[in-house]
Amino acid sequence: MIRVGIFGASGLAGGELIRLVVQHPELELTFLGGNASAGRRPAEFHPGLRLDLGLTIEPVSTNLAGRCDVVFLATPATASAELAARLADEVPCVIDLSGAFRIQTPALHDRWYPDVRRAGGLADRFVYGVPELIGDQLPGAALISLPGCFATAITIGLAPLVIGLGLNLKTVVVDGKTGSSGGGLSLRTADLHPLRNGAIAPYAPAGHRHAAEVKDFLERSKPGGIDSLSMSAYGVSHVRGLMASSYVFTDDEVDARTLNRAYLRFYKQRPFVRVRRHNETLIPVPDPQAVLGSNYCDVTVLHDEEGGRIVVLAALDNMVKGAAGQGIQVLNLRFGLPEETGLTMQPVMPA
Amino acid sequence: MIRVGIFGASGLAGGELIRLVVQHPELELTFLGGNASAGRRPAEFHPGLRLDLGLTIEPVSTNLAGRCDVVFLATPATASAELAARLADEVPCVIDLSGAFRIQTPALHDRWYPDVRRAGGLADRFVYGVPELIGDQLPGAALISLPGCFATAITIGLAPLVIGLGLNLKTVVVDGKTGSSGGGLSLRTADLHPLRNGAIAPYAPAGHRHAAEVKDFLERSKPGGIDSLSMSAYGVSHVRGLMASSYVFTDDEVDARTLNRAYLRFYKQRPFVRVRRHNETLIPVPDPQAVLGSNYCDVTVLHDEEGGRIVVLAALDNMVKGAAGQGIQVLNLRFGLPEETGLTMQPVMPA
Amino acid sequence: MIRVGIFGASGLAGGELIRLVVQHPELELTFLGGNASAGRRPAEFHPGLRLDLGLTIEPVSTNLAGRCDVVFLATPATASAELAARLADEVPCVIDLSGAFRIQTPALHDRWYPDVRRAGGLADRFVYGVPELIGDQLPGAALISLPGCFATAITIGLAPLVIGLGLNLKTVVVDGKTGSSGGGLSLRTADLHPLRNGAIAPYAPAGHRHAAEVKDFLERSKPGGIDSLSMSAYGVSHVRGLMASSYVFTDDEVDARTLNRAYLRFYKQRPFVRVRRHNETLIPVPDPQAVLGSNYCDVTVLHDEEGGRIVVLAALDNMVKGAAGQGIQVLNLRFGLPEETGLTMQPVMPA
Amino acid sequence: MIRVGIFGASGLAGGELIRLVVQHPELELTFLGGNASAGRRPAEFHPGLRLDLGLTIEPVSTNLAGRCDVVFLATPATASAELAARLADEVPCVIDLSGAFRIQTPALHDRWYPDVRRAGGLADRFVYGVPELIGDQLPGAALISLPGCFATAITIGLAPLVIGLGLNLKTVVVDGKTGSSGGGLSLRTADLHPLRNGAIAPYAPAGHRHAAEVKDFLERSKPGGIDSLSMSAYGVSHVRGLMASSYVFTDDEVDARTLNRAYLRFYKQRPFVRVRRHNETLIPVPDPQAVLGSNYCDVTVLHDEEGGRIVVLAALDNMVKGAAGQGIQVLNLRFGLPEETGLTMQPVMPA
Repeated sequence: MIRVGIFGASGLAGGELIRLVVQHPELELTFLGGNASAGRRPAEFHPGLRLDLGLTIEPVSTNLAGRCDVVFLATPATASAELAARLADEVPCVIDLSGAFRIQTPALHDRWYPDVRRAGGLADRFVYGVPELIGDQLPGAALISLPGCFATAITIGLAPLVIGLGLNLKTVVVDGKTGSSGGGLSLRTADLHPLRNGAIAPYAPAGHRHAAEVKDFLERSKPGGIDSLSMSAYGVSHVRGLMASSYVFTDDEVDARTLNRAYLRFYKQRPFVRVRRHNETLIPVPDPQAVLGSNYCDVTVLHDEEGGRIVVLAALDNMVKGAAGQGIQVLNLRFGLPEETGLTMQPVMPA
Repeated sequence: MIRVGIFGASGLAGGELIRLVVQHPELELTFLGGNASAGRRPAEFHPGLRLDLGLTIEPVSTNLAGRCDVVFLATPATASAELAARLADEVPCVIDLSGAFRIQTPALHDRWYPDVRRAGGLADRFVYGVPELIGDQLPGAALISLPGCFATAITIGLAPLVIGLGLNLKTVVVDGKTGSSGGGLSLRTADLHPLRNGAIAPYAPAGHRHAAEVKDFLERSKPGGIDSLSMSAYGVSHVRGLMASSYVFTDDEVDARTLNRAYLRFYKQRPFVRVRRHNETLIPVPDPQAVLGSNYCDVTVLHDEEGGRIVVLAALDNMVKGAAGQGIQVLNLRFGLPEETGLTMQPVMPA
Repeated sequence: MIRVGIFGASGLAGGELIRLVVQHPELELTFLGGNASAGRRPAEFHPGLRLDLGLTIEPVSTNLAGRCDVVFLATPATASAELAARLADEVPCVIDLSGAFRIQTPALHDRWYPDVRRAGGLADRFVYGVPELIGDQLPGAALISLPGCFATAITIGLAPLVIGLGLNLKTVVVDGKTGSSGGGLSLRTADLHPLRNGAIAPYAPAGHRHAAEVKDFLERSKPGGIDSLSMSAYGVSHVRGLMASSYVFTDDEVDARTLNRAYLRFYKQRPFVRVRRHNETLIPVPDPQAVLGSNYCDVTVLHDEEGGRIVVLAALDNMVKGAAGQGIQVLNLRFGLPEETGLTMQPVMPA
Repeated sequence: MIRVGIFGASGLAGGELIRLVVQHPELELTFLGGNASAGRRPAEFHPGLRLDLGLTIEPVSTNLAGRCDVVFLATPATASAELAARLADEVPCVIDLSGAFRIQTPALHDRWYPDVRRAGGLADRFVYGVPELIGDQLPGAALISLPGCFATAITIGLAPLVIGLGLNLKTVVVDGKTGSSGGGLSLRTADLHPLRNGAIAPYAPAGHRHAAEVKDFLERSKPGGIDSLSMSAYGVSHVRGLMASSYVFTDDEVDARTLNRAYLRFYKQRPFVRVRRHNETLIPVPDPQAVLGSNYCDVTVLHDEEGGRIVVLAALDNMVKGAAGQGIQVLNLRFGLPEETGLTMQPVMPA
């Protein structure tokens, strides 16, 4: 059994990690860390979780040498930056769910995460990326940074164009729509149910740091692949799941058949990416409700001939493939387990 | 009192028209028309409506000469095309809420409404447009076609750029998000609550006829203003209200201050368009929940310098400013009443 | 014009009062009071509200002598208790929306509102009650206490049995279901959208102070009418509107026809109470969505022969008939205006 | 591997069964049956389901002798009645999810299921009941009838009082609240999203057949335990999950401590029933959102001293513990597998 610790155990992402670790046949939960929550039981914060976990949340200062084979940081970026510096020497593997180590280019990082100071050289030691793209870097990795929820969907959506087909994308306009769970459980008036239900909330109408993250990564993976990428993000009236729509303009020649084949080929061996036709089931897909609770990312590519553009839609559960589930997927690859271990749960739909 | 008739009285738009006519001090409801619903009381179809209206739904074949000063067609486009041909000679004014007469260019109409045959010459006699832009054509008009719900929001959002500032827009990418009331009450499995709640449904992922309508209108209003306009539309998990996001690329010089001033100036005298700053209230705006039940259209313009684009957000209640309310607004202007008569109801929020 | 002041102008009930005062033809808004919000514009707190009100929120300590003919207290019960004591001498009429003066029996008040101290004799000077029942006490009243949202629905539901038919109700079991707006905008983790959406939250599973209020009132109105009344309350997954179900056991003889006639007769002259048959429209009624945004209370009575009980269902909009709208209704009666003045807005449905 | 067939494969309950069979380590899906859906792939009807199941839906007339060890009937009661008669001789075990064989007393069955004719003697051969109560009858059973979703929650809630403590319950008033998935995907106007979202729909205000089922079962299990049981049921504004509130009046002596202990003891060895304190986590429990997607039934008992009653709240996922999950649980017990096999998935919350 691989011994797992989780920092940020009282938050939403921490709770989702507990859920998935509990369901995983090869993992043993040996540490839960929190500050304000230290000394309390995880079920106090996670109403659905089985009640007999037998663990109490411990202070984050607890030394984990010899107690954990891997730890997840489900903490704010500022806390993750500090914890990673310490834990790098304490446990064999650290997987960070925050934005602290996602953007590798220092100037870009400083612009989008001005409050997050990273210890010298630490950022360069992190492996970052969607596991479908950087899986070969994971076995044995000591420090891993998980992509943001939107960044995961956008990257999975664009990679077959940029990396698979080698297109040059002149302009990419991303419109992101997400449920309220993306904002966690911080107390903000605008996130109270009366104001959030029924909303279309343009919370990041002219720029989002997940777009910077995608550009930084894809530019390293395939220099010159994308000229311009802009993004706007909206909160809509459900809880779990997001959709990233990428509207792509290119001068390269493409057609619908080539596109669809390229996507199918690119993700042929990837169990968690499902390339789907828009009308193959009784609701239009992709739709995040069709992946709810699962680690799937559903992708559809369309050629809008009249609009002169490619439309790429990618939907995932921001708590699973966009956070905790992708964390387990990465853990599996890091420790040499089959990629799907503990992640075979099917979508819970309708819900 | 102006005598009003409504065709399609048992549908959602018909019900909303009844609501607004009942609340209007200068209107008298004298006819409700329906086919399957003929002989029944409107309250059977509209659970909220006051119970003592004293009217029964009559067959659509009823002759209205001398009974109505104006009729609304809240009917499907095919039915509207037929009814308009007949009623043009029967009543002084016909206001059509369907898409039958929105696109004036015949080839474009035939492409998006292949089933809707319009009697020879009839389409040319219709006045079409958002009343904020074509108000001077309304007094005394005999035939009026109301813009679609998304078309209203997009046009209100783009007009200050194209008409007000005279910019040339190279590329406009529209992302539309709407609630389920936009689909009416037809029985479709995908619209049942279990499948529609929690959805982000890409029902028109690569093209929407409201975009064609906007292009057709703006090209007539300001030839050459827009080079390319594409659209994708999504159903999200609420009932009433929509947002149209227009991502605009232009080679012309603009800055945030110029943009904001241009919008304020353009809509200075227009009571139903509110130009708002994104962060002026406790939720980000525009948001359709902040106009629910009212005839307002809220608009915000942002300059995304890094993305090299203008972001225009427009939110409205698709049942009111996107349909019945705009119909009453147009009626007011047609009959010389003050524009706000009967439309001063404030948004019902939170709801 | 009657000059109106509102305390608690930044809260949900305060915002709803502003909405209704703005829509009312005989009222003029002359004062908005708040503490933390003093100096700010109401539109900062009420995203939907028209932007040009021309009023700024003032400190609650402002002297209102000569400025207001009536003030509403949309403040917490502790604040209302203090404000009422002061304002009783300052303005001709005070209408309190809080629970401070609802329960007149001192011991019962102290039990349910232990923190709310009422100045000596002040409570006895308040007129309390649903205006349908105590309307004759309102003209010229100086101090008025509005019933709670659930209390309004329960009282309207039970009054035809207790007062109209003079039945003795052995056991009344009330099950209340409400949307999230009932909880206001206080920052509580359980009220964040991710935890409140999809919930059936038993927040008051074995007792609710609105039940105490109803018992206190009905016992005064009709001593011995009800032997036992218990209540449980739940938050469900919408925002606005509530339903109170009263399951009534009596040894007196009744049948369905008698019941239905009694309800129709009891509310015959009351414009805001609609006695409805359960299956008279395309959804089962009463349903709070069918009164949304309006001042209606819909009531249905059923005789469950097999269960040996009477089922009374009452639905209303907790923000309107359950709070601000009832406040305006009471104001109308207090100042001799027709009861429906400014309250003729029809339900906004679907929403 | 146990070979499983599912009739009604295109419906909601059928889809949920497929989900759980796919996740189960000891089950192999060998047959999917449907009528209108025959010849089509299950993914057409179940948007979330993994795409590579390799099965096509077959006609219901298919002979299953030698192909299935057990079949589930996720069909309407009329169809189940016919299928069960045929399949009783064709396969070793039939598990029916419909209401066809739930009520054993013939007169009571005929009253609540007048259209469902049961072949002579067939009903008596069915084992019926919540597995927590009738588990010892399941090993080797040939015909099993699963309780209804509400019936499961009510029975689990009342059994510790009636069977555990042996109380005589004078009056039980049940108030049931459920999401829209309980109604399946039949096309009904009232179930369209615009009319169902935001609703509190009193669809069974004065009687529900699940109450008849509970009375019939408990009267057999413990004659005289309950004198009167009545029920009302409501659809509320979410999709998945229900709550059954039982308000219980008894002349027997009880107190809070005795009650709580009795519940803990009664369900001590039952992995799927969680006896919870009302305030033990950050939302009030039980709440169906805290069991979403899982096979748990959460139960809380409260003593309302002032109301002179016991309040029992039971929440479950109507698709899992209320239908498909309970079916798998029963299958496990029928075939001698550990009760939790394939059912260890944790609740997906928030969702």
